[in-house]
Amino acid sequence: MHPPRWIAAWVLLLHGCAADWPPQAASATTDIRDCSTDPPYLPPTSVNTTARLAALRDIMRAHRVHAYIVPSTDAHMSEYIAERDSRLGWLTGFTGSAGTSVVTQDKAALWTDSRYWTQAERQLDCNWELQRTTWIESIGRWILKAVPVGGNISLDPFLFSIDTWNSYSQALHGSGRTLLPIENNLVDQVWGDQRPPPASSEIYTLPAAFTGSSWQEKVAGIRQQMEQHVRRPTAVLLSGLEETAWLFNLRGCDIPYNPVFYSYTLLTNTSISLFVDELRLSAAARQSLQASCPGPLCVELQEYGQTRAYLHRYAQGNVTIWLGTKYTTYGLYGVIPQEKLLEDSYSPVMLAKAVKNPKEQELLRAAHVRDAVAVIQYLLWLEKMVPQGQVDEFSGAQHIDTLRQAQEHNRGPSFQSISASGLNAALAHYSPSNGSSRKLSVDEMYLLDTGGQYLDGTTDITRTVHWGVPTPLQKEAYTRVLMGNIDLSRLVFPPKTAGRTVESFARRALWDVGLNYGHGTGHGIGNFLSVHEWPVGFQSNNVPLAAGMFTSIEPGYYRDGEFGIRIEDVALVVNAQTKHQSREEPFLTFEVVSLVPYDRNLINLSLLSPEQIRYLNTYYETIRARVGPELQRQQLEEEYRWLQRNTEPFPLGSAATTTTATTILGTLISLLAVLLTGLQA
Amino acid sequence: MHPPRWIAAWVLLLHGCAADWPPQAASATTDIRDCSTDPPYLPPTSVNTTARLAALRDIMRAHRVHAYIVPSTDAHMSEYIAERDSRLGWLTGFTGSAGTSVVTQDKAALWTDSRYWTQAERQLDCNWELQRTTWIESIGRWILKAVPVGGNISLDPFLFSIDTWNSYSQALHGSGRTLLPIENNLVDQVWGDQRPPPASSEIYTLPAAFTGSSWQEKVAGIRQQMEQHVRRPTAVLLSGLEETAWLFNLRGCDIPYNPVFYSYTLLTNTSISLFVDELRLSAAARQSLQASCPGPLCVELQEYGQTRAYLHRYAQGNVTIWLGTKYTTYGLYGVIPQEKLLEDSYSPVMLAKAVKNPKEQELLRAAHVRDAVAVIQYLLWLEKMVPQGQVDEFSGAQHIDTLRQAQEHNRGPSFQSISASGLNAALAHYSPSNGSSRKLSVDEMYLLDTGGQYLDGTTDITRTVHWGVPTPLQKEAYTRVLMGNIDLSRLVFPPKTAGRTVESFARRALWDVGLNYGHGTGHGIGNFLSVHEWPVGFQSNNVPLAAGMFTSIEPGYYRDGEFGIRIEDVALVVNAQTKHQSREEPFLTFEVVSLVPYDRNLINLSLLSPEQIRYLNTYYETIRARVGPELQRQQLEEEYRWLQRNTEPFPLGSAATTTTATTILGTLISLLAVLLTGLQA
Repeated sequence: MHPPRWIAAWVLLLHGCAADWPPQAASATTDIRDCSTDPPYLPPTSVNTTARLAALRDIMRAHRVHAYIVPSTDAHMSEYIAERDSRLGWLTGFTGSAGTSVVTQDKAALWTDSRYWTQAERQLDCNWELQRTTWIESIGRWILKAVPVGGNISLDPFLFSIDTWNSYSQALHGSGRTLLPIENNLVDQVWGDQRPPPASSEIYTLPAAFTGSSWQEKVAGIRQQMEQHVRRPTAVLLSGLEETAWLFNLRGCDIPYNPVFYSYTLLTNTSISLFVDELRLSAAARQSLQASCPGPLCVELQEYGQTRAYLHRYAQGNVTIWLGTKYTTYGLYGVIPQEKLLEDSYSPVMLAKAVKNPKEQELLRAAHVRDAVAVIQYLLWLEKMVPQGQVDEFSGAQHIDTLRQAQEHNRGPSFQSISASGLNAALAHYSPSNGSSRKLSVDEMYLLDTGGQYLDGTTDITRTVHWGVPTPLQKEAYTRVLMGNIDLSRLVFPPKTAGRTVESFARRALWDVGLNYGHGTGHGIGNFLSVHEWPVGFQSNNVPLAAGMFTSIEPGYYRDGEFGIRIEDVALVVNAQTKHQSREEPFLTFEVVSLVPYDRNLINLSLLSPEQIRYLNTYYETIRARVGPELQRQQLEEEYRWLQRNTEPFPLGSAATTTTATTILGTLISLLAVLLTGLQA
Repeated sequence: MHPPRWIAAWVLLLHGCAADWPPQAASATTDIRDCSTDPPYLPPTSVNTTARLAALRDIMRAHRVHAYIVPSTDAHMSEYIAERDSRLGWLTGFTGSAGTSVVTQDKAALWTDSRYWTQAERQLDCNWELQRTTWIESIGRWILKAVPVGGNISLDPFLFSIDTWNSYSQALHGSGRTLLPIENNLVDQVWGDQRPPPASSEIYTLPAAFTGSSWQEKVAGIRQQMEQHVRRPTAVLLSGLEETAWLFNLRGCDIPYNPVFYSYTLLTNTSISLFVDELRLSAAARQSLQASCPGPLCVELQEYGQTRAYLHRYAQGNVTIWLGTKYTTYGLYGVIPQEKLLEDSYSPVMLAKAVKNPKEQELLRAAHVRDAVAVIQYLLWLEKMVPQGQVDEFSGAQHIDTLRQAQEHNRGPSFQSISASGLNAALAHYSPSNGSSRKLSVDEMYLLDTGGQYLDGTTDITRTVHWGVPTPLQKEAYTRVLMGNIDLSRLVFPPKTAGRTVESFARRALWDVGLNYGHGTGHGIGNFLSVHEWPVGFQSNNVPLAAGMFTSIEPGYYRDGEFGIRIEDVALVVNAQTKHQSREEPFLTFEVVSLVPYDRNLINLSLLSPEQIRYLNTYYETIRARVGPELQRQQLEEEYRWLQRNTEPFPLGSAATTTTATTILGTLISLLAVLLTGLQA
């Protein structure tokens, strides 16, 4: 799936200034809304927020707050959030997964990245300015203009990471305005009893067959890191929901698409505190956690709401608390005295989770084989149904979900399917709804970005297809996106290479002709966890690539109002075989574990180099070897034949570089003709 | 020339952990020195530092300093420094341009990057540990081990940038040790009257023919930026020596190879203060600066030593001072109240200087034509002299300096020539001395990295040559380094791309076979200013690439104890012509302005793609067109013929991808044979 929330930071860092990036940066005048007329023109999808804003402004006045910042995340910096945490969505009407809003007494603005501009235009009413960037410095500038010196800018400290807090603090620094945390969320006060209730479903243990190691082994590994660290931390604080889920091999369903549950963990050198609603734990889960009680491997259950108070007490002692600044909130951070903090971008748990052990790798590989079956079934089904005019984006998305659910170990989709036809695919993050769904047609390109949750792994794949006659530009752009996917996938690179220093290989084929895409190139992925898993990927805030990490590779190309292309695979970082070995640690490369062929109808073979074609053919051999037997096992004979057809090796002779060969051929044929003529004469 | 001081930060950021990078990371046991024997074995180049250390430790005790940090730079964060500022060199014996030392009562250690490890082993005595990293966190850890809780760690606040100060502060944070600035430098106290005196040579005005615009135009441009900035700064503080030199079109010779002079500038919206030894200004310089006095374009001359006091007074007012944190020292920064600071990595002057206007571009291009003449003369001379066994590294370096000096507008070399034969070239930053200089031989590779200062521009070029029969590995490595140089040089990329996200293109051909190099890929360069000009280049702390910037492109490969390869050109960032134009701002690419052909003897054409060969041939046409006429104008007929020979177009048929062509050819020939046989029968 499309790279996550922190894309904006990446765009920023790659390009230095987000203001005029990406290329398609629409000026305000192209806004779908027209707020200059009376009454204004608003699309029917827009939400009337006048009453909500008025109520919020009342409360702001009561608190002497001149500007209130509302982010899109929850107290765990989750990318996907529960309805209950969708304060931004409720307040603004905008339901995209990433954005920030600021409200003053007479202004309201929403900042979001290019994935969401059109969606925001369709959902915001005229109370809202749309700011087409997510750079905090830009938000800061807006606030400096809107709030006079002496004003208070407030936010809920439990909804901002330390890093984000610091960025706001920096943006307002020395300006005479005060950044003022208020713990009692002002939007929640306005939302009142209409706010959805907390989650109550069961939290369960993941069977041992689907875990890489026991939770006791994981805890021992983290404690070993604590002992070996020069600062000798006494505790690790886990705020990320997937950290706790991974550490204890527990899962829940508090958040759509992500099998996690609300929790914090404080893992000390002698104790383990899990902050969670303990009534929700299954009997097996409770048994697993408390089998060794009392003792250092006994998990003490604490109330979720007591995390801050408990941490505050713990921090009074002679302790050092290790935490990840990217996703620990300022609300928790603030109770730990500065000298007792050991700050890293990511906790050791986040980093341990990022490198899959051999068993976890095998589990993820296996999930991708079954996932490929479902996607192949879908692609074949589309080939038959689309020409009959019987599929629209929404029914298509439903069908792929159904196909995945039929696969063993499936636990639903890993994110809301992106099923986009024609110009809708130019919105890189478009999802159809029942009410507004475009019919699929042989005259348009279709982009499908979907994934599944399986007990053994999370999947995420994008294919773009065309069943008719693509335009030359569509074919060129598709081929260049594919070339980028191939060039990055087959790259050999040194250990500890940062993803951001190599992601341009996925862009070069597009750059060559003046094209590009405005999102990141990949993200980590979990074993039955998040589809966007920190901190792996190709962006500035990702950690260096290491063997055992899984990342998506997903270049694209989007042409506003026309079409969109993305080709996404999940790949495992593996050791490479190189001609020379100049260092102890081997070089690395990728093993692609997504196993679905690309649309042959959209490939202009003459653009590919022989190396790219050879790579493709080898990849197709792998697909046949891994998916073919599974299709046969599932008695999907038609799909099996489809796979064989679609993985036929490409002829090397068609490669870009045979110009020379063709020239020589031409010369020789002429020569031959002359010779033959001579002989005949 | 080889990338600069901040290389270490780059290595760090690219690879996440400097500890085990680069590959050739020698363990302590391979140190040339053997301090375990009695007496220890030390090379004759080592310096006895026992007495200096004892004296420093006495002073440290008097100041209650438990560890004293001595860096390699001066109060302007200059890369090259005057002898007077070579405190690190005097104290340790190590004369490399980048390093940090820390002295305690019983320990002393030097940290430096891989360019300098061997040099350090040759120069340090057994008083010194050599630490093969420059990561401040590593220095911090060493200090934490060496200094007990409660201890004072001291440094001269005028020798540390704000950023570096903050890094040390962070590394010691919460450890119970105190970071204590002491303004009176302790090494200077020990050095006493043996310390070289301050510079006294003339500071002069650069003629208008060699400047891009008048200093008044430059000042107006900066003041406009101040007005347009949301924070409305009232002043810009310039600490970088090249900032002041560029702004006022003045030059001096206080620092070897860099035509700058000791100075600071405080440019306010109403006044201009230049802190400099005013007696050293030429009459013309003084006239130029003070022609409009009094008034906003009058340059008031202040004593260099009064900078801090003046800034302190200015900062009492209702002011906001804009400065670059990368190279302003903590000593100056500390006198400005936090709320009156406007901090950026680089001042607006540094950024304005980085983008050359059309006239400056033409000047730099012209300097490179004459520079190519000198290098071509040298390469031809070597071809004739080396087989006679009459050239060594030092005499070679002297000869190229002489050849450059004969060129119009030359003002000496732009850095100490790197002239390295055989295994010496594996030390990426090796410079020969008269005493120890290896003879050049037809049996060894030779690396020449040199540059000139011309009134119109600064040059920097590296060529690696072999006059005999290179080994297959030498030829492969050279060809792959060249492929990297070509691949980056011909890259087309979007505006505002950060160099670090594309520099891997210079590495891929090496990576493909498991090879790499441990330094950065390029650096900015000035118009008769520094050979390493901030903040342009391909490293993490460089600003995004923009049309008008000049950068070197210089991949390499180094094989310890055997040979070293580097191929370096200077290139101008220019607008690219692309098939599609999807955005208002055009894409960018490079125009290489260094104009010397590569060694044909070292190129394995079969590794190159047709695109790479086509690029090479086009580049060679440019060399012929630009340098040919200049060689003829200077009546260098033999050199002209050498140039023609060495820029012959390469046959496309030899490209890597003609395997297919060859196969087809073979088939056709067989076919022809059969046909002819048939016809004859």
